[in-house]
Amino acid sequence: FVLFLVAESHFYKLFYKLLMSKATPTHGLVKDPDLPVTADGVTYHLNCKSDQLADRILLVGDPGRVDTVAAYFDAGSVRFRSENREIFIATGTYKGTPVSVLSTGMGTDNVEIVINEIHVLKEYDFERSAWRPRAGDANVPAGVKVFDPSSVKMIRVGTCGSPYPDMPLAALAVTRHVIGMDNTCLYYKVKEEMQKSKDLQEVQRVVKEQTSLGAIDVYATKAHPAITNGIVAACKTFNGNLPAGAKEQLYVVGATATASGFYACQGRAVGRFREHLLAPKLVEELSKVQFDVSEGKEIVANIEMETSAVCFLSHLLGYQAGSMCVVVAKRAGAEHLFTTSEQSGQGLKNAIQIALEAIVALQ
Amino acid sequence: FVLFLVAESHFYKLFYKLLMSKATPTHGLVKDPDLPVTADGVTYHLNCKSDQLADRILLVGDPGRVDTVAAYFDAGSVRFRSENREIFIATGTYKGTPVSVLSTGMGTDNVEIVINEIHVLKEYDFERSAWRPRAGDANVPAGVKVFDPSSVKMIRVGTCGSPYPDMPLAALAVTRHVIGMDNTCLYYKVKEEMQKSKDLQEVQRVVKEQTSLGAIDVYATKAHPAITNGIVAACKTFNGNLPAGAKEQLYVVGATATASGFYACQGRAVGRFREHLLAPKLVEELSKVQFDVSEGKEIVANIEMETSAVCFLSHLLGYQAGSMCVVVAKRAGAEHLFTTSEQSGQGLKNAIQIALEAIVALQ
Repeated sequence: FVLFLVAESHFYKLFYKLLMSKATPTHGLVKDPDLPVTADGVTYHLNCKSDQLADRILLVGDPGRVDTVAAYFDAGSVRFRSENREIFIATGTYKGTPVSVLSTGMGTDNVEIVINEIHVLKEYDFERSAWRPRAGDANVPAGVKVFDPSSVKMIRVGTCGSPYPDMPLAALAVTRHVIGMDNTCLYYKVKEEMQKSKDLQEVQRVVKEQTSLGAIDVYATKAHPAITNGIVAACKTFNGNLPAGAKEQLYVVGATATASGFYACQGRAVGRFREHLLAPKLVEELSKVQFDVSEGKEIVANIEMETSAVCFLSHLLGYQAGSMCVVVAKRAGAEHLFTTSEQSGQGLKNAIQIALEAIVALQ
Repeated sequence: FVLFLVAESHFYKLFYKLLMSKATPTHGLVKDPDLPVTADGVTYHLNCKSDQLADRILLVGDPGRVDTVAAYFDAGSVRFRSENREIFIATGTYKGTPVSVLSTGMGTDNVEIVINEIHVLKEYDFERSAWRPRAGDANVPAGVKVFDPSSVKMIRVGTCGSPYPDMPLAALAVTRHVIGMDNTCLYYKVKEEMQKSKDLQEVQRVVKEQTSLGAIDVYATKAHPAITNGIVAACKTFNGNLPAGAKEQLYVVGATATASGFYACQGRAVGRFREHLLAPKLVEELSKVQFDVSEGKEIVANIEMETSAVCFLSHLLGYQAGSMCVVVAKRAGAEHLFTTSEQSGQGLKNAIQIALEAIVALQ
């Protein structure tokens, strides 16, 4: 009897998985170890074909959140699902517009994998066995459509800690500039325009001079302004549409610091590691810096583990990407707090709805 | 009818999950955002209590492999399971010795989380609300047992690519020295003995001088010799016990290069990223370097994404750790090849059995 009840509660999900599993080819033969893609066009980590991934993508960290996001898609619209390692994907529509949600797992190294494979899925033409041409390329073959990189739009929806003393718990930190404290993107040479950007130089200079990260080769990047502005507009609409008396979703636009770990890499001292921390005062230092950028004064809104690679690699490819994270840990100010699961749950629900509205509204 | 069949095939698994889920408390209230552990001693990412994790741990990258490993545990011995994000755990016994298998997910940033939380679970005394003393500590409270860090033993069992021209496909790359091309461990100050190690200096010097990674702040570390030797001994025993005519599991001991990504970070050029690669000849360069270390000449056996942090952070804590990876991509030599799923499947099966034998044999 117990068995029956357990099984029943999973009936729908299992049946669904069985149906969907047919749409998900698993690793076939890979020929080139430098570009591991199967003969039928499935990438190595994403386990997905070109036509199974939408141009508008929400990136979450936690594979468990892919289902949470897909629950907001139009009823019955999910046409593709896959699961491989920590990378889960669901593709459907939101208010009629095709959208995918994809979990990166934690860290910039995972994001590097995801953005490279999205690049393959969007721009490699498996029929012609050639990369799709873009406007401005030399020798575009006759009859072949050019690819517009700005059609790829991505918003990361994650969780984070905050060094900003006035940050409300469970507020959204919306990324403008990014401090790359990881080194994933150092393996990519920057574009000349990025090297010359006064704003990015300012971010790098201030971090180098005013924190203990002098010994780290910190890089700077930026969310695509259309994404940052789109998220802010969606936050305003979300709050404007709330029923009377409902609690507004607070948000703060600022810089995001991306770390290559969660503990010492974010200034957290654990047990015997305490004496080995390179930057034990990192949070306090980041709570004080201010960047003097084109948009005005910018504070560090949050610390997390993925945004630098999302924004940097997208920018190199001409894709539009940005990031918004629910603050689950307040690490500076009068009180240091962690959200209850109710608080972070509500923040994430709001964040998902705002992100979906933002991504389908983008031109 | 179809529903019934689907359900039936999952009966056992589901029932098991239901039973097990009671042993897995999910996030309760966390008080300190700098050390996110619930009041009942569950760590934030590992979702596990101290007595639910064995001292001997196999680390796999892919959460899907936790079940594969646990299938080799003593029948009916699995007493704990948990799943959170990409971190899955199963704890049971192998030939009577308690063992856990834990998936880190991909990347050194994930490993940083895992090792920090293993440190909490092993050495924080939740009853006394204090860190356990070690031999040699000042002021060990009377009646409190000291903790022996060498009781924590970890072997990473993963997959990797190889720059070594003579590496057989699906062979095991067994780690001796490690080239940290990520920056996770730069946030931890090294011990004096590591700074003074001639072998680690040699590894750093050769990489700096003979590859294009001059601009990257590469660090060096080493697997614990007891683990490296234990893996080699277990390989020999495994091959010695094979039935006549069965294929031997080949293995190569050497240095492991750990990357902070899979594509440009490992010298793979994808589409429009090609012109941005910092080190397009990385594999060729790594195929040529040789380290002149205490043990003799050492080649770079493999490139992967976790071993540097596993070895470096364990060494800081006095834990014993090492790594063995199945070569799924041969990236140098006469032929560049990717394993078929049969080849990598057989290699992984062998690797798991060898790792289990090695970890329970360690003194």
